[in-house]
Amino acid sequence: MPTTITKSHISVAQNASGRHLNVPIYEISSQLDGPHVYIQSSIHGSEVQGNVVIYHLVRALKELTIHGKITLVPNCNPVGTNIKAGEYTLGRFDPVNGTNWNRGYYYDEEAVIDFADTVTAQDSIEDIRRAFKAQTLSQIQQKQQQPWGLGLAQQLNLTLQSIACQADIVLDLHNGPVSSRHIYIPEYLAHQATQFSMPHVILIPNHFAGALDEASFCPWWTLSEHLTTRFGRPYYFNIEAYTLEMGSQEIIDFADGETDASSILAYLQHKQCIATVDYQPQDIKRVGVYLKDYKTLFTDFGGMVEYTAKPGQQIKQGDTLAKVLNIDDLDNQYGAQIIQAPCDLIPILHFPSASVLSGTQLYKCFTRYFDID
Amino acid sequence: MPTTITKSHISVAQNASGRHLNVPIYEISSQLDGPHVYIQSSIHGSEVQGNVVIYHLVRALKELTIHGKITLVPNCNPVGTNIKAGEYTLGRFDPVNGTNWNRGYYYDEEAVIDFADTVTAQDSIEDIRRAFKAQTLSQIQQKQQQPWGLGLAQQLNLTLQSIACQADIVLDLHNGPVSSRHIYIPEYLAHQATQFSMPHVILIPNHFAGALDEASFCPWWTLSEHLTTRFGRPYYFNIEAYTLEMGSQEIIDFADGETDASSILAYLQHKQCIATVDYQPQDIKRVGVYLKDYKTLFTDFGGMVEYTAKPGQQIKQGDTLAKVLNIDDLDNQYGAQIIQAPCDLIPILHFPSASVLSGTQLYKCFTRYFDID
Amino acid sequence: MPTTITKSHISVAQNASGRHLNVPIYEISSQLDGPHVYIQSSIHGSEVQGNVVIYHLVRALKELTIHGKITLVPNCNPVGTNIKAGEYTLGRFDPVNGTNWNRGYYYDEEAVIDFADTVTAQDSIEDIRRAFKAQTLSQIQQKQQQPWGLGLAQQLNLTLQSIACQADIVLDLHNGPVSSRHIYIPEYLAHQATQFSMPHVILIPNHFAGALDEASFCPWWTLSEHLTTRFGRPYYFNIEAYTLEMGSQEIIDFADGETDASSILAYLQHKQCIATVDYQPQDIKRVGVYLKDYKTLFTDFGGMVEYTAKPGQQIKQGDTLAKVLNIDDLDNQYGAQIIQAPCDLIPILHFPSASVLSGTQLYKCFTRYFDID
Amino acid sequence: MPTTITKSHISVAQNASGRHLNVPIYEISSQLDGPHVYIQSSIHGSEVQGNVVIYHLVRALKELTIHGKITLVPNCNPVGTNIKAGEYTLGRFDPVNGTNWNRGYYYDEEAVIDFADTVTAQDSIEDIRRAFKAQTLSQIQQKQQQPWGLGLAQQLNLTLQSIACQADIVLDLHNGPVSSRHIYIPEYLAHQATQFSMPHVILIPNHFAGALDEASFCPWWTLSEHLTTRFGRPYYFNIEAYTLEMGSQEIIDFADGETDASSILAYLQHKQCIATVDYQPQDIKRVGVYLKDYKTLFTDFGGMVEYTAKPGQQIKQGDTLAKVLNIDDLDNQYGAQIIQAPCDLIPILHFPSASVLSGTQLYKCFTRYFDID
Repeated sequence: MPTTITKSHISVAQNASGRHLNVPIYEISSQLDGPHVYIQSSIHGSEVQGNVVIYHLVRALKELTIHGKITLVPNCNPVGTNIKAGEYTLGRFDPVNGTNWNRGYYYDEEAVIDFADTVTAQDSIEDIRRAFKAQTLSQIQQKQQQPWGLGLAQQLNLTLQSIACQADIVLDLHNGPVSSRHIYIPEYLAHQATQFSMPHVILIPNHFAGALDEASFCPWWTLSEHLTTRFGRPYYFNIEAYTLEMGSQEIIDFADGETDASSILAYLQHKQCIATVDYQPQDIKRVGVYLKDYKTLFTDFGGMVEYTAKPGQQIKQGDTLAKVLNIDDLDNQYGAQIIQAPCDLIPILHFPSASVLSGTQLYKCFTRYFDID
Repeated sequence: MPTTITKSHISVAQNASGRHLNVPIYEISSQLDGPHVYIQSSIHGSEVQGNVVIYHLVRALKELTIHGKITLVPNCNPVGTNIKAGEYTLGRFDPVNGTNWNRGYYYDEEAVIDFADTVTAQDSIEDIRRAFKAQTLSQIQQKQQQPWGLGLAQQLNLTLQSIACQADIVLDLHNGPVSSRHIYIPEYLAHQATQFSMPHVILIPNHFAGALDEASFCPWWTLSEHLTTRFGRPYYFNIEAYTLEMGSQEIIDFADGETDASSILAYLQHKQCIATVDYQPQDIKRVGVYLKDYKTLFTDFGGMVEYTAKPGQQIKQGDTLAKVLNIDDLDNQYGAQIIQAPCDLIPILHFPSASVLSGTQLYKCFTRYFDID
Repeated sequence: MPTTITKSHISVAQNASGRHLNVPIYEISSQLDGPHVYIQSSIHGSEVQGNVVIYHLVRALKELTIHGKITLVPNCNPVGTNIKAGEYTLGRFDPVNGTNWNRGYYYDEEAVIDFADTVTAQDSIEDIRRAFKAQTLSQIQQKQQQPWGLGLAQQLNLTLQSIACQADIVLDLHNGPVSSRHIYIPEYLAHQATQFSMPHVILIPNHFAGALDEASFCPWWTLSEHLTTRFGRPYYFNIEAYTLEMGSQEIIDFADGETDASSILAYLQHKQCIATVDYQPQDIKRVGVYLKDYKTLFTDFGGMVEYTAKPGQQIKQGDTLAKVLNIDDLDNQYGAQIIQAPCDLIPILHFPSASVLSGTQLYKCFTRYFDID
Repeated sequence: MPTTITKSHISVAQNASGRHLNVPIYEISSQLDGPHVYIQSSIHGSEVQGNVVIYHLVRALKELTIHGKITLVPNCNPVGTNIKAGEYTLGRFDPVNGTNWNRGYYYDEEAVIDFADTVTAQDSIEDIRRAFKAQTLSQIQQKQQQPWGLGLAQQLNLTLQSIACQADIVLDLHNGPVSSRHIYIPEYLAHQATQFSMPHVILIPNHFAGALDEASFCPWWTLSEHLTTRFGRPYYFNIEAYTLEMGSQEIIDFADGETDASSILAYLQHKQCIATVDYQPQDIKRVGVYLKDYKTLFTDFGGMVEYTAKPGQQIKQGDTLAKVLNIDDLDNQYGAQIIQAPCDLIPILHFPSASVLSGTQLYKCFTRYFDID
């Protein structure tokens, strides 16, 4: 069964020279039935490791039998990748207006409920799935055609989502600043956590805050709940969406990327997207947290910081998280100050610069975490 | 009756050198009863003209009899004022994370309703006002004391709001990018539009989106409505809050600032904060719009732009708003493209750079506008 | 005699997505003999008006009979055009390392002298010109092939110069920050000042500081002087190079661009590049200065500035140039401070932002200026 | 013999709020004779580790007997430290105009020669040293008083140099991007290399390019050579200046800082500035290079880069230095490209971001290096 790769490009924006900014799209498919998988990387411009993961995925998938279709979209935000400010990439938000590149996807709860009301008891899961995908696409396209136009980040998001919304499985590859590998999983898919080789798992509720994973699963979750209530029996659509954080931003590592790709291949094998038994999730300890317990620690004072607690490390309440140098007090006891853990926690990521103003996000931490088996 | 000026400073942040960033506070008061007025400027760092307005206000108020107290806080965001990126000031958002400096004020609708429920029919307006101010301050202070800390923009906003929330009148002085003079007025204060010398007036609903004017009037509007409903009679608290847009950013003009100050003094005189008859609103044509009809025009394509429609100009549907140069088509008819007005409108402000990506906010426009007399 | 336009693109860089950044090249020529003219615009990314000038030049030249060849290169720095930092374009230097985009052109005085030594008394001007152009091109190409590579700004400059160095006339179109129209002319071409419609003229010596105009005329000036000395008779190569400052950056104005294009067409007509009598330099007052008397005024203190002196205005010693607001002294006489002209001068341009740190270039000024007739 | 610490602050600039930006100065001295040592850190804002080194130096020196005086100036560029662009610090150059913060120090070779001509054969080394220091200070002060003012970076540099130029030993603490520890040593002090615990040593000639170390030693080197030539006997002034690169930027590490401080204390002990035998240079392998052989490798193409060669590693010609991902060619053999070492080399530092445009400085490398014993 031959595996076909096709490559195309779509324009997601025009720059100030009037040039199209294109995103490459790789599609790998066969004639065999199976789910449609959508994987994108680098919506935040400095989070580049996902591109290497897709590099390894393409190489591996070429040699495998695919069931269904896999769409891979590396470097999906060429604007964000190419804004330099000093040596680093200012990739998290539009430099013109501060808009986060990952907050303009489409979700309209009312439209989902309206749709749910049109479903009849006789409609098959497959029929509903097809009709709902068609409606979502049509609504996104309508939004794209506003006579007054749309902001750049939203235009970019909707162009990508018009592809992603047709998929059954959506993986959005990100990085943290200085970060452990971790994954965002919707609560209804908690049991899938062991299918990925990710030591840290954040379980998120059915709440839309603008990101692609939420935009992908919230509609189905909501639809499923409404139909279940209405018809008194469960509706499973088998739609899944995850955000995978592949370690730290501003790093390309081909060897790690191969491991990351294997983690995704193990999941795809489990979902029967590929016909092989070569890939297995790693036998690692996994720790989970509910989103409400995934907390940000802001610093109350500015200065120069050593991050003494490392991502993934278990920290006890009162332990030192960071040491702050105060250059005006080198001759007295305030020259170095300690920031302590407010409770037992695991730091998952920390700020990537040693210089911080007051109010900087020093750490994001798991609190009230639990083992996942 | 002597007029006293006191000057103090509060720290609103610490920078990466560990130094306090201070904001100056000028207080002008007398023994005479009257409202408490709070005026701040430059929460967005490149919107500097309000500082000149406060300069002229201080000079004028020194010579006048004050009823009550006037608190003036120029340059209220020393972080935003001091982030240069190239020659211009990157003043609209935190350069670290893209957070708008004017979206982190506090408002909790539920807390207002809870408070409303504690009011009795016997409580005087004055008692309610005093108790509600005390509650708001206490809630802000509680928020400032979060054990995990707060982001820089929110810290800054709450520090300012802890002063502003004690005032009866709040004026937040801003500028647009390239902009006409215009004012945001809550709908319940529409009749006050003629007290300011502002040709363009945006009427805003009781909806909180994070800005200081909303944070200042939404609680009182909500409280008033609840009490009115509950007790079947009107409750007027005489609290007012406005955002004044003093023309274009990145410009200091002392002469214009004196005119702007006169406009504010006329309003203060009308509100009986100052004992004089010297100041009158200008006899100008005023045009109003509801917020929902104040629309942003985004461009669909990138390029280099001439803004042919000027702020304040009446434009007919189909008229040229902008001409976009396309450097790859200078030898054919696509070298210069026209952007037309989608309907009758008045452009109020336009983007300040000639180079735009697709999805840039070209213009903000009044549509379905009306005369205000 | 038909006029032909050809359009091509050259890659001047690759971005972080690995994509080529292309520059459009328009060539307009006929079979008739005449000089080769090279015109580029926007080497500094926010200086965009030259692109409109080239737009109008292309339209006008299509209708005219060309003698020789005219190469037009708009938007010659697509990197610089597309670095946004806030709403404005950070176009003057590489955001990664601060390198000015207009300082990496090639000039090697020793190589010129070595070449001069190979010339014999019998060589015709035409032979020398051809041989010297060939040598310069070959040296630039050699520099481009360094095994350790070159910095981005220098790569960009050399790619453009490899075209420009073959021309007889080089015009580099720039803008100032907030600026009058002015022109840089090499001292040996001072008599050409009246051929342009530029009110302000800076005469520059035979000194290379990295810019394209210097890189274009310094070799010929040096060569000419050496041959003149050696052979005791004048050598005129009729090579000219100018930098034209088309007013203020961050502005596109199609009507002004047409006037600017007419000014250039008048010069081209005078140089017999085009066969027409339609274009004449404007009958304006011209003021000149030697480069050593074109002085930069830095501010000693930071604050918010009104630029009270306008570009082009004649200012007397002691007159007010700027007023600086000091937000910590609004209650005393230091609230507004005056910056005075240190001598009689004409401000040609001023800083485009109202917020300045100490040490900011407030103004560039003509001092000891003189009339040009 | 009691050791005294005094702390003071000097203003090096004013920001856009009109506020002074102060630099702390710690002086540690006793009554005992000895050299004057000047140590500064963080002239480049993101190179912060030197501040921790000074923290440890102050703590250690308090307990020691000082001979002479030691002036420590941490965080000497509060402007550079506080320019954020995204999460990182844009600390290498003025964000307004691209000026490197470390290129505006003063050196005038002619003034040195003029001074040398005033020396007589009878003048003692001590007299010459005192007179020459006085002249240098006076010339710096004159430059600071220009009626037209000076640029911010130069103002900052001269303020610091007016202190440093009075010292006998100047240490300027820097960091590289991602970097090994290395040191710049003037060739005439090559024998001192073994007094520091720095594995990589760059020997620099008597050439001024604007940095503090050069500005500190070039005058004395030049003076010494002129006097030696003139009077036919050696003149040693015992003035030393070094730039120490304390590893990578954007990192604070207290433990490493203590080691770095010990390295400096060993040198100070060797120079008899402190009375102790506690500190010794580490017994490490040292490799040296002449500045002309310290080469920068630029990339010819843009993309996402893995830096496979690590700072300090010995690399053979043809070995892989970096792998570049090309996201448009993931389906063919150009998906990952190799950058090879052009000769045997040791990479000393590499670019800190994984995203590069063509023309980016990938690596700086020792070539033709040699052992130092």
